[in-house]
Amino acid sequence: MSDIAPDYRDYRAQDEASLPDYLGRLPAIAARLGGRAADWAVREVGDGNLNLVFIVEGPAGGVAVKQALPYVRLVGESWPLPLSRAHYEHLALVEQARHVPDLVPAVLHYEPGQAFIVLELLQPHIIMRRGMIQAIRYPRFADDIARFMAETLFRTSDLCLPAAEKKARIAAFCGNTALCKITEDLIFTEPYMVAPNNRWTSPELDGIAAEFRADAELKLAVSRLKLKFLAAPEAMLHGDLHTGSVMATPEQTKVIDPEFAFYGPMGFDIGAVLANLLLNYFSQDGHATPEAPRADYQDWVLATTVEVWQKFAAHFLSLWRSHATGDAYPAPLFEDASSQMRLEEERASHLRRLFRDALGFAAAKMIRRILGLAHNIDLEWIEDQKRRALCETRALRLARELMVHAADYPTIETVTDAARAMQRQSFQGLG
Amino acid sequence: MSDIAPDYRDYRAQDEASLPDYLGRLPAIAARLGGRAADWAVREVGDGNLNLVFIVEGPAGGVAVKQALPYVRLVGESWPLPLSRAHYEHLALVEQARHVPDLVPAVLHYEPGQAFIVLELLQPHIIMRRGMIQAIRYPRFADDIARFMAETLFRTSDLCLPAAEKKARIAAFCGNTALCKITEDLIFTEPYMVAPNNRWTSPELDGIAAEFRADAELKLAVSRLKLKFLAAPEAMLHGDLHTGSVMATPEQTKVIDPEFAFYGPMGFDIGAVLANLLLNYFSQDGHATPEAPRADYQDWVLATTVEVWQKFAAHFLSLWRSHATGDAYPAPLFEDASSQMRLEEERASHLRRLFRDALGFAAAKMIRRILGLAHNIDLEWIEDQKRRALCETRALRLARELMVHAADYPTIETVTDAARAMQRQSFQGLG
Repeated sequence: MSDIAPDYRDYRAQDEASLPDYLGRLPAIAARLGGRAADWAVREVGDGNLNLVFIVEGPAGGVAVKQALPYVRLVGESWPLPLSRAHYEHLALVEQARHVPDLVPAVLHYEPGQAFIVLELLQPHIIMRRGMIQAIRYPRFADDIARFMAETLFRTSDLCLPAAEKKARIAAFCGNTALCKITEDLIFTEPYMVAPNNRWTSPELDGIAAEFRADAELKLAVSRLKLKFLAAPEAMLHGDLHTGSVMATPEQTKVIDPEFAFYGPMGFDIGAVLANLLLNYFSQDGHATPEAPRADYQDWVLATTVEVWQKFAAHFLSLWRSHATGDAYPAPLFEDASSQMRLEEERASHLRRLFRDALGFAAAKMIRRILGLAHNIDLEWIEDQKRRALCETRALRLARELMVHAADYPTIETVTDAARAMQRQSFQGLG
Repeated sequence: MSDIAPDYRDYRAQDEASLPDYLGRLPAIAARLGGRAADWAVREVGDGNLNLVFIVEGPAGGVAVKQALPYVRLVGESWPLPLSRAHYEHLALVEQARHVPDLVPAVLHYEPGQAFIVLELLQPHIIMRRGMIQAIRYPRFADDIARFMAETLFRTSDLCLPAAEKKARIAAFCGNTALCKITEDLIFTEPYMVAPNNRWTSPELDGIAAEFRADAELKLAVSRLKLKFLAAPEAMLHGDLHTGSVMATPEQTKVIDPEFAFYGPMGFDIGAVLANLLLNYFSQDGHATPEAPRADYQDWVLATTVEVWQKFAAHFLSLWRSHATGDAYPAPLFEDASSQMRLEEERASHLRRLFRDALGFAAAKMIRRILGLAHNIDLEWIEDQKRRALCETRALRLARELMVHAADYPTIETVTDAARAMQRQSFQGLG
């Protein structure tokens, strides 16, 4: 596996017509599909913002194909974006598969110069965000995402890797700057200033958007988080770990789309998961009807939020106790009983710092989805604008509080309690 | 300038006999020396631990030549060390020269495959550490080293560079892991455990060395610093910024030997300077005689210590106010008066955090020079063992206090006051 981004001179974007021939030249893929290329059904299904995604089905089975485009699909050729994101996605998929092979799709083929990845077809999985909008419960999710994060973050960090190996991994991802810049701009910068990309439910949120743009405490807090995002390569991150990057059934969880992967602060991935659960929680009031109330589902969402953090922390701590093979906190310094005891306290305090980071990043993620460019369908699909604005206002108010006063929320239960209290708030003119 | 470490297949170590011929083939160098190669006087003067260093003088002028060896010179071929350190040293020298050309030696020639750098000969400069042992005052030092640090740290950080450019620089230095590992082991690890490399003034310091090895608070504090050293690429560091890496006259300061350069936490360079001033301060009681007391010089050392931090902070803040062209703390977020004011407070609080980091790293540097492998001649040259042990004990006691309770020392004056108080302490059986 090379760490150097490939040469794209022979790159050519596939389409539904060209793809069967292309796949037909790959014996393992052809065998998995079965029959002849002419028999294969191809559907372009990319509903994300960036790439081509095809589902190909033959008599014997199916595959998913993901190909990067040299621009942002949502916007078009006016917003170029390097094909090398497929290289970083592949690097990340391979690394994740070493630690949690059951939680990521298997890579069946990678064509570097075509920015082209053939993946195991996930069936009957759906994008978890869509399931949550329908109030589907995912009893495996907390366990699985907690393990995904604990394993991928711990095992790519200085707690597990020798420094030289970790630095080589940092360097391998240093070129994924165009994708990082999207995060830097859209999450940490634009929602806090007047920017053409921003949009929100208007006029209802005009006031709070203006308030946030004038809120010096909030802007400093998000800037501190941005600096951490820029300069704290603690572990290899997924980089975009929201519920739209999870394909799930009630029995299985698969994390997809790690093209934003890079070495960054662990709290960013954790915060992304917490944020998207909280956004969904607040959105439920917009989907509830008298016939189909959502209070029970909201309880499930918050219970899941609590479990995600608690299970993550437990798994991460357990790895730290049993697999601390990295250069940080060197074992020979902590062999005596009293040092062992203090090291265990240090682990707990390290996790408390990580939790604070995660809350800050969660808040940044919540705000960007309401005041920035890319919104969540959890909220977007609420048709009644005043009702949507109410859900969004609650989410924004909680996010502002979490970002500026993260230290006041020492446990995940204090966060879900605050969410519950916020969900009971009304705001003038909304709801 | 390539960022990729060179190929060393044709590497050959020079000696006094071979060097004139080699330099004779470099027209610019030959012209600078004047006359013919046979006329040039060559002296091997490397008194450092790692490399060959030659001074070459001809009728018209002189040059210094530094060539890496494939092992640690101090130890021999049994401790291999990559030649690529010359590559990183050259990268760092070029970067430093962009920001503080008057404070680093000019690079006259670089031969990548030979790990061979020809530098401006610094005359009549001496290693500042040696000057300080003789109680020579350097009235330029505080200004110069403060500017060196502020310029090189600020201008290679996220406060000044766009993220993509900074990440490329991080990646360029990610390969200098062998040199980083020396720091990781010798500074952050071995002094706190039983390790064959360790040595100290024995038996006088046996007790305190054992006490430190059992001191869980201290071991956690140094491990937190180690993690920061491993995972906080805030800026390009010199990486070994002690008074032995400074060549000075009372009129001029030149910083040399950046082969440990990499992207790390800013406090590490600052702490190195503070540590070496404090070590010299404590060593002066070992050099004072009734005829030549050192009290006035000690006052100068502490006054310089105060100035170094204060001038650094002032210069760094001024750069931040005027040259914040990086992606951190984006200017459009802080345009209104109240945000401007809060941003200025944030800068001050950022500097307070940096000061805490610097104190921790300073303490680690002090401890390693007394209990670890590589010692300082400031202390080593004190012949009376009990007297030396007294100076060392004071330095160790202050260092332990600074590392574990850095937050209790909010200003540099509180540190120098603590040093003064410690210098009056006696310890049983010593002095």
